[in-house]
Amino acid sequence: MRDAYIVGAGQSAYGSFPDESYRSLFRTAFEETLASVDRPPEVDEIDEAYVGTLGVGGRQLGLSGPAVTEHVGLHGVPVTRVENACAASGSAVRQAVMAVRAGMADVVLAGGVEVMTDLSGDAVRYWLGVSGETEWERLSGTTFAGVYAQMASAHMREHGTTAEQLSHVAVKNHENGARNPKAQLGFTCTLEEAMEAPTVADPLTLYHCCPTTDGAAAVLVTSEDVAAEYADAAVRVAGVGAASDRVGLFQRDSYAAVPAARKAGEAAYAEAGVGPEDLDFAEVHDCFAIAELLAYEDLGLCERGEAGPYVESGATRADGELPVNTSGGLKAKGHPIGATGAGQIVEAFDQLTGRAGDRQLDDPRRGLTHNVGGSGGAAVVHVLEREGVGA
Amino acid sequence: MRDAYIVGAGQSAYGSFPDESYRSLFRTAFEETLASVDRPPEVDEIDEAYVGTLGVGGRQLGLSGPAVTEHVGLHGVPVTRVENACAASGSAVRQAVMAVRAGMADVVLAGGVEVMTDLSGDAVRYWLGVSGETEWERLSGTTFAGVYAQMASAHMREHGTTAEQLSHVAVKNHENGARNPKAQLGFTCTLEEAMEAPTVADPLTLYHCCPTTDGAAAVLVTSEDVAAEYADAAVRVAGVGAASDRVGLFQRDSYAAVPAARKAGEAAYAEAGVGPEDLDFAEVHDCFAIAELLAYEDLGLCERGEAGPYVESGATRADGELPVNTSGGLKAKGHPIGATGAGQIVEAFDQLTGRAGDRQLDDPRRGLTHNVGGSGGAAVVHVLEREGVGA
Repeated sequence: MRDAYIVGAGQSAYGSFPDESYRSLFRTAFEETLASVDRPPEVDEIDEAYVGTLGVGGRQLGLSGPAVTEHVGLHGVPVTRVENACAASGSAVRQAVMAVRAGMADVVLAGGVEVMTDLSGDAVRYWLGVSGETEWERLSGTTFAGVYAQMASAHMREHGTTAEQLSHVAVKNHENGARNPKAQLGFTCTLEEAMEAPTVADPLTLYHCCPTTDGAAAVLVTSEDVAAEYADAAVRVAGVGAASDRVGLFQRDSYAAVPAARKAGEAAYAEAGVGPEDLDFAEVHDCFAIAELLAYEDLGLCERGEAGPYVESGATRADGELPVNTSGGLKAKGHPIGATGAGQIVEAFDQLTGRAGDRQLDDPRRGLTHNVGGSGGAAVVHVLEREGVGA
Repeated sequence: MRDAYIVGAGQSAYGSFPDESYRSLFRTAFEETLASVDRPPEVDEIDEAYVGTLGVGGRQLGLSGPAVTEHVGLHGVPVTRVENACAASGSAVRQAVMAVRAGMADVVLAGGVEVMTDLSGDAVRYWLGVSGETEWERLSGTTFAGVYAQMASAHMREHGTTAEQLSHVAVKNHENGARNPKAQLGFTCTLEEAMEAPTVADPLTLYHCCPTTDGAAAVLVTSEDVAAEYADAAVRVAGVGAASDRVGLFQRDSYAAVPAARKAGEAAYAEAGVGPEDLDFAEVHDCFAIAELLAYEDLGLCERGEAGPYVESGATRADGELPVNTSGGLKAKGHPIGATGAGQIVEAFDQLTGRAGDRQLDDPRRGLTHNVGGSGGAAVVHVLEREGVGA
């Protein structure tokens, strides 16, 4: 089995872009990706592509894979759309790694795109809602904020987690996002602001919820055989894990954990031969503040039930022992559904190759990305390591 | 690189099933698949799954992969939805082959499902229409029948193909479909009926168009390392090829060819080390009669421009030199979008393992499946060979 290396990664800004199209955003991400490669490939050197995206309608196009790749000049090669709700492009990157490991491609583009801000609230709720369970969630009126609110309530009840601890996630991620020029909500917030913001779904306030976002992100994955042609320092995909679960939250054993994320993390750690103690940073799927706390526990960054005190300790701040969501996370950077998983890997690539600007950590060697679909019906985790690939 | 083997394949009946759900149809395909395996695996021996499906809404569920796999008891393993319009589950099977070749899974379920007959005509046209080009096709009022009608007109003009030759496709596929208990339109038709049926989009009559269909199909792909645990005679995936193209027909060089299908076919032949002359049968994507004629040419079954006389000669009838669409094809068996590609492989598996009942060919050794998305924006071709896998 050949190793897969990420030699480039890039994204559009995340935000609300009425003057952009589905394809123009993807093209921006593609161009940023090529620009990040030490010696960029010609377009015709790309063997295959995977595109993660959720919805069709509005500015989103059908036959989504070829629709966006034709716009960047990629004609003829295999292109496949993959979708796992909000884990769409984490899944796309995993498929790219698989194509390389299978020996079926040497240079693979994996990315994602979503254009959501021009849709009505009803349309966005429908797009997202259908990724939940039907009768007992969507048709009963439960939004995803409502589902995660139930998870937050369960975690509070079982482990004594507080609204203040949830708010620490918002403060930290906005602090990071304020240093990210690509972030949608690039401003800071105080603990009081996060706690006292209007309630979206009790106990979650507005600052405990990610925004609706337009954006695209992409990653260029190559085989170990050719990585050195394109890059001097690249990022090895040391481990990748994925898992699924029952779609409906009520069908699972616990409301206060995401078993699919735990399984995906264990698989990625096992493949990489490392554990959470070996990570220098992580980008996790904080669609809601509780989701980041669950990620800490599911990924073994702290003990089960200890995520509240852990975030409160400052351990996951940019200057803490294990920085989490240096990009600003879904909370502040934004959450363009199909782009999110690839966008997490963009941040990891930037950190591991010293391109993270004002957010740059001190010489990180290994990072993790954690991308969740629905309330945990799907999850994908990557463990990424900086590695010289030159001769 | 490890070889991938198909050890089982099954499908629901295709038709209009108001009393079935998205998940119940998938479960039927899953159960039929297990029942076709000499020594079926336990559900927990399945390492991974890919699900092809097009639309969300109506009876179709979001987070589609986990939504259908949880219903067959497959919990926890990686599940990914793949979509390439009508090539969704051809793409799903290709990803399953890739997972095996990459060494990331030993037993992979790949399938597809679509429930369409309860949707309004407008909804079906929208679902399908968005898989075409936007401004110059869909928003200009061109349906997929209209797009393929333009391809038929071009082929007639360039090569002298006749309406009678198009009608021979219908007659042949209905003749085959009448021998397939799973077919939606399991009746025969005469050349006159096909020619004189109402026009859908000139020159295509009703008999030149596939129906709207509910159905599901699945395939069980294993590595060469474990195939013998499950099957005595299995089907080796000798070659697989995929390709993309510009989504809009008008953006391509010719209206009378599908370059993505040609490329996918060439790639599959090259991997298998065979050519069209080595095939014993083929299942091709005859969403419209002209699509089958284009397939003959794109896949090298006959010379470019010769598909009309070729079908007229009877060469592709069940008793001809190269039977095509013994299942009845999309035309008579039906076309539940997401299920179609996997369903073609079900027919190939049945033919290669002697399970094709009244349609059984005489000892076929090698077959091809050809699955097209849109009007050729995506295509996937598999070359499949019967092979003993026992010790």
